[in-house]
Amino acid sequence: MTAQRTSTGTDPTGGRPVVPSLGRRRPLGVNEIELTGGFWATLQATNAAATFEHCEHWMERLGWLANFDRVAAGTTGPDRPGWSFSDSEVYKLIEALCWEFARSGDPVVDDAVRRLTARIAPAQDPDGYLNTCYGHPQQQPRYSDPEMGHELYCTGHLLQAAVARLRTTGTDELVQVARRAADHVCETFGENGLRAVCGHPEIEVGLAELGRVLGEERYLEQAQLFLDRRGHGTLRDIPLGRAYFQDDVPIRKADTWRGHAVRALYLAAAAVDVAVERDDGALLDAVQRQWAHAVARQTYLTGGMGSRHQDEGFGSDWELPSDRAYCETCAGVASVMVSWRLYLATGEVRYADLIERTFLNVVATSPRSDGRAFFYANPLHQRVADDWPGEDGVSLRAESGARAAWFDVSCCPTNVARTLASWQAYAASAGERDLTFLQFTGMRVDAELGDGRSVSVDVDTDYPDDGLVRFRIVRAPSGPVALRLRVPEWAEDALLDEGGRLRRVQPGFAVVDRELEDGEELRLQLPTAPRFTWPDRHVDAVRGCVAVERGPLVYCAEAIDLPEGVDLEDVVLDTDTEPVARDGRVIVRAVVQPGPEDSRWPYHRRAPLLGPSRSNEQAHADGMGPDGTGPDETRTDGFDVTLTPYHQWAEREPTAMRVWLPVLTR
Amino acid sequence: MTAQRTSTGTDPTGGRPVVPSLGRRRPLGVNEIELTGGFWATLQATNAAATFEHCEHWMERLGWLANFDRVAAGTTGPDRPGWSFSDSEVYKLIEALCWEFARSGDPVVDDAVRRLTARIAPAQDPDGYLNTCYGHPQQQPRYSDPEMGHELYCTGHLLQAAVARLRTTGTDELVQVARRAADHVCETFGENGLRAVCGHPEIEVGLAELGRVLGEERYLEQAQLFLDRRGHGTLRDIPLGRAYFQDDVPIRKADTWRGHAVRALYLAAAAVDVAVERDDGALLDAVQRQWAHAVARQTYLTGGMGSRHQDEGFGSDWELPSDRAYCETCAGVASVMVSWRLYLATGEVRYADLIERTFLNVVATSPRSDGRAFFYANPLHQRVADDWPGEDGVSLRAESGARAAWFDVSCCPTNVARTLASWQAYAASAGERDLTFLQFTGMRVDAELGDGRSVSVDVDTDYPDDGLVRFRIVRAPSGPVALRLRVPEWAEDALLDEGGRLRRVQPGFAVVDRELEDGEELRLQLPTAPRFTWPDRHVDAVRGCVAVERGPLVYCAEAIDLPEGVDLEDVVLDTDTEPVARDGRVIVRAVVQPGPEDSRWPYHRRAPLLGPSRSNEQAHADGMGPDGTGPDETRTDGFDVTLTPYHQWAEREPTAMRVWLPVLTR
Repeated sequence: MTAQRTSTGTDPTGGRPVVPSLGRRRPLGVNEIELTGGFWATLQATNAAATFEHCEHWMERLGWLANFDRVAAGTTGPDRPGWSFSDSEVYKLIEALCWEFARSGDPVVDDAVRRLTARIAPAQDPDGYLNTCYGHPQQQPRYSDPEMGHELYCTGHLLQAAVARLRTTGTDELVQVARRAADHVCETFGENGLRAVCGHPEIEVGLAELGRVLGEERYLEQAQLFLDRRGHGTLRDIPLGRAYFQDDVPIRKADTWRGHAVRALYLAAAAVDVAVERDDGALLDAVQRQWAHAVARQTYLTGGMGSRHQDEGFGSDWELPSDRAYCETCAGVASVMVSWRLYLATGEVRYADLIERTFLNVVATSPRSDGRAFFYANPLHQRVADDWPGEDGVSLRAESGARAAWFDVSCCPTNVARTLASWQAYAASAGERDLTFLQFTGMRVDAELGDGRSVSVDVDTDYPDDGLVRFRIVRAPSGPVALRLRVPEWAEDALLDEGGRLRRVQPGFAVVDRELEDGEELRLQLPTAPRFTWPDRHVDAVRGCVAVERGPLVYCAEAIDLPEGVDLEDVVLDTDTEPVARDGRVIVRAVVQPGPEDSRWPYHRRAPLLGPSRSNEQAHADGMGPDGTGPDETRTDGFDVTLTPYHQWAEREPTAMRVWLPVLTR
Repeated sequence: MTAQRTSTGTDPTGGRPVVPSLGRRRPLGVNEIELTGGFWATLQATNAAATFEHCEHWMERLGWLANFDRVAAGTTGPDRPGWSFSDSEVYKLIEALCWEFARSGDPVVDDAVRRLTARIAPAQDPDGYLNTCYGHPQQQPRYSDPEMGHELYCTGHLLQAAVARLRTTGTDELVQVARRAADHVCETFGENGLRAVCGHPEIEVGLAELGRVLGEERYLEQAQLFLDRRGHGTLRDIPLGRAYFQDDVPIRKADTWRGHAVRALYLAAAAVDVAVERDDGALLDAVQRQWAHAVARQTYLTGGMGSRHQDEGFGSDWELPSDRAYCETCAGVASVMVSWRLYLATGEVRYADLIERTFLNVVATSPRSDGRAFFYANPLHQRVADDWPGEDGVSLRAESGARAAWFDVSCCPTNVARTLASWQAYAASAGERDLTFLQFTGMRVDAELGDGRSVSVDVDTDYPDDGLVRFRIVRAPSGPVALRLRVPEWAEDALLDEGGRLRRVQPGFAVVDRELEDGEELRLQLPTAPRFTWPDRHVDAVRGCVAVERGPLVYCAEAIDLPEGVDLEDVVLDTDTEPVARDGRVIVRAVVQPGPEDSRWPYHRRAPLLGPSRSNEQAHADGMGPDGTGPDETRTDGFDVTLTPYHQWAEREPTAMRVWLPVLTR
């Protein structure tokens, strides 16, 4: 990294989740970008209108909020409801409310922040410790379970909430509570304190950002200390291995992300923060190397990360099963956190590319359109239509073919809430004399450039449904300015129209660097014809399959859209027929290849014929069982299958689903 | 089922693990079959020479044996070592020793049974309860955790050990302990007792068999009661769902096996026992239906069952990942238990076919050739060479690419021990006037037929390495007798040679029904040319791949056998060249298709070319990242790859491994 001090990098307000003091790009805040309509404005409005209240309702109902009251009242006991990390959900909701208040200025939202703060603050111990699960009458002692106790994890989310408050409103009781908590952490775990780390990284990213916004150098030092301590067997070994909490290899030395995906990614985000603040190129290189490895060998088409249910973890290279894809929503959020920090540090477009993919196909997939139910895991293949847990049910498990109102482990709803509430902060960035558009949706950007000039642009688009993105210059600065428009990695043959002058632009950044005029309009036309996407031959799980994408969206086949009596597992795609877009969905051509009867051994002596004919030789019985009759015949009459954007799957009803469909070979 | 009373079915001795009072086939015992040499005799000898002592050593070292001493001494406390089910490992070892004593008559083995019994017996409470984890000072109360407590599970294994003792030696202190324990179970959980079941089935199969051998009807009644109680939400719901312990659907109504594979299969085994004893055709049909479904859609090529690590469970239909295949060794043992009971009940060859596949490719895979280390999980694909835990290490996890000396959860070693010690009991069966050979290995069979005549046959073979099996009639009965030789499902074009008269025989049973002469020899020639095996197109995980089998053996490619610098993940098989056998291994032809560089997005706009050439169009960059360059070129120079029998994988050293190899398409 060539360090570059961003001129307004240490500005405490501005509504930005991440404000590095060095880096190639300056983030814009929720105060500088307003969503004016379209895909993300709708999600954000629903988030504000429904999800916050929904989350608070459930946390009240389950006693997670009352846990704070009981600590304050001294009435704790062994019967505390919720997991050890339930406090963090309250903090994530507060963080979401802070961003939302910056957007809407709605006093009801501000009241909610104050109301929740007023319940949290009295639970803080005099020395700054704040956790409702440990250290009080009839509870385990503080920090007695570093591996699984989640105490510092909870504190980290408290600090992130305080960062949101500071960057949007300013200091208040929440911030004071967070400062006391951060001070307590530094005192307890500093150079001369406990040589421990938290099993679930998060304190690091919280300390780093609170340190930045408050100019508290020792918070950054403590974050760095936690990073450096990790990876040396600091934590106890567990059946899942120390890789589960990234305590097997120091982050500077690791080539890959390992273990629990959210933990690995929160840690990587903090590592970028520390690398940037310390101008530590080696550490930044390490995270970039890990990112590149993960993107090449450990990432799903949707951008989802985490292949294993067992440890919610990254698996081996190329271990990317569609059906058992975990792709936790929170790992999607965490992946955006890492990529965003790497983008700010390096300015490289690939990070924004992955952010778009992950936003549209993981983060946006989680919430139901009414904002009151969520996916936790985001598999790319649902073999059987799942039971619907109902509006009133707490899902005991992460995996489900239907969005759940709430979870026993309910990290995802509040993570979606805080991410959607601050979504616009990831849409654009500024440089010394440039404004860069990274994500496309209806929005107004009023940005100050590094050189002190300001520029105002309205973006109007139906993206991702449509590929036309219009940038109207509301207020141009005097003198030349660079507008940089991301051309996504999939957008071959995109066109840029500058007042009738058309030019072809390639993936990367399309740059318009000249004097602009008020009222002038640039039009970026991104191709949105549906396309087949093929997996690298090393991805065992989807060999012989194809997926369909359109623009930045991954599509899927839902069983409820198939003709009566057709099993989704029997559908084979005919790629000789090009996919066609229709009303935001995509039509493909398919045939049916039925499954064998029960009791037929599914491993044969002869290669299955995938074409329509069947040789006599093929009819040889080689099944284990009396009714083995060899592979079945292909039904040759093709039919149309309508594919749905993946982020909408199971919106209508629980159903079987596939992103990757087997390809008909002739 | 047409019930058929087997004439000696209730004979208490004879060294047989399972003795139904009804059924189409009579099992032969370890007293009637002696292994004389070859594959299984070697495994059995190593089991006796090394594994028993190895298991006892570890259980002593870890305090699992001392747990009994402490209960007897009244010195229990909260610090009891081992999981709640560690008692069962002692019982399984005793069971193994009982079978071994019947085989060898070695007084040292008998001493071991007595020595272990002498440590167990004093721990039994006056009312018959026997468990070192519950119900004593500073322990949880008895039966306070039916879901996960494993108390009745442990008792079930105690009963099975007593069955082995009764059927080989007769009644003694072990049997008395078991009777008291069984009586206690009936009193506690009978019609008027606790309406509970154990989260881990096993008591049912133990009660059923102890009931048979002792003629204790109420043990069978209790087994039936447990079966009938299960499946109605009798147990508490857990995050993995009640399917985990088969409490979601009654076994009579279920179409498939669900949840934890060992639990499901132990339960199914007990259901066959109860169905046979009660002549309950509907219940037998249910288990047969579930078996057929599992074999068609939930079973690996190796015979392994259980696709998921998370719950050690059966997954959905067609969910058969090679890399994350759990295929627990114990599930292989349990699958044999079910299939054996179904074979005895129905006489159908398919059950013996699956038993052979499972014995040779799952059960035989687990123990290292020295009998002192074991696989717990048996995946069909190891992506990365694993660390070797060392001879002195207790593996905390089930998954490993290297056999471990012992496990934190160490169910598999003792299950292998008891199964190998009684292996010959599954090799043949008798009918009214027939002797049926089910498994082939060097052995002497001295069997009494249902009509009271006896026959003695020596089997001589190098099977499974060689396909020639010679049956020499040592002592023929007077009058015609039927010798029935299983022709395995994969054995097309097998030949039977009756003193020079050759005939082609087909999969199923080849029958020689005539008067036999002493000294006469029958020769069964099974084809052992290696063959390619193709998956049904519904098995997503191995689409586009092929496996190699030879006779009953599945083969695999081990990375250590590849040319220097070749990554196993880059190896693609050329199926135009037929596989060739050489010294028990198989040679196939392959090419290398290298992986992409790091940071290359692995999903492409164009189908990967699998042939040797590469079009210019293909060279289009479509990677997410600056160095994306499209799919790589295929290295066209083919080379030989030597495949190893799967049961020998990782014997030489930990290594990456694949059973299913991608197929070169042109």
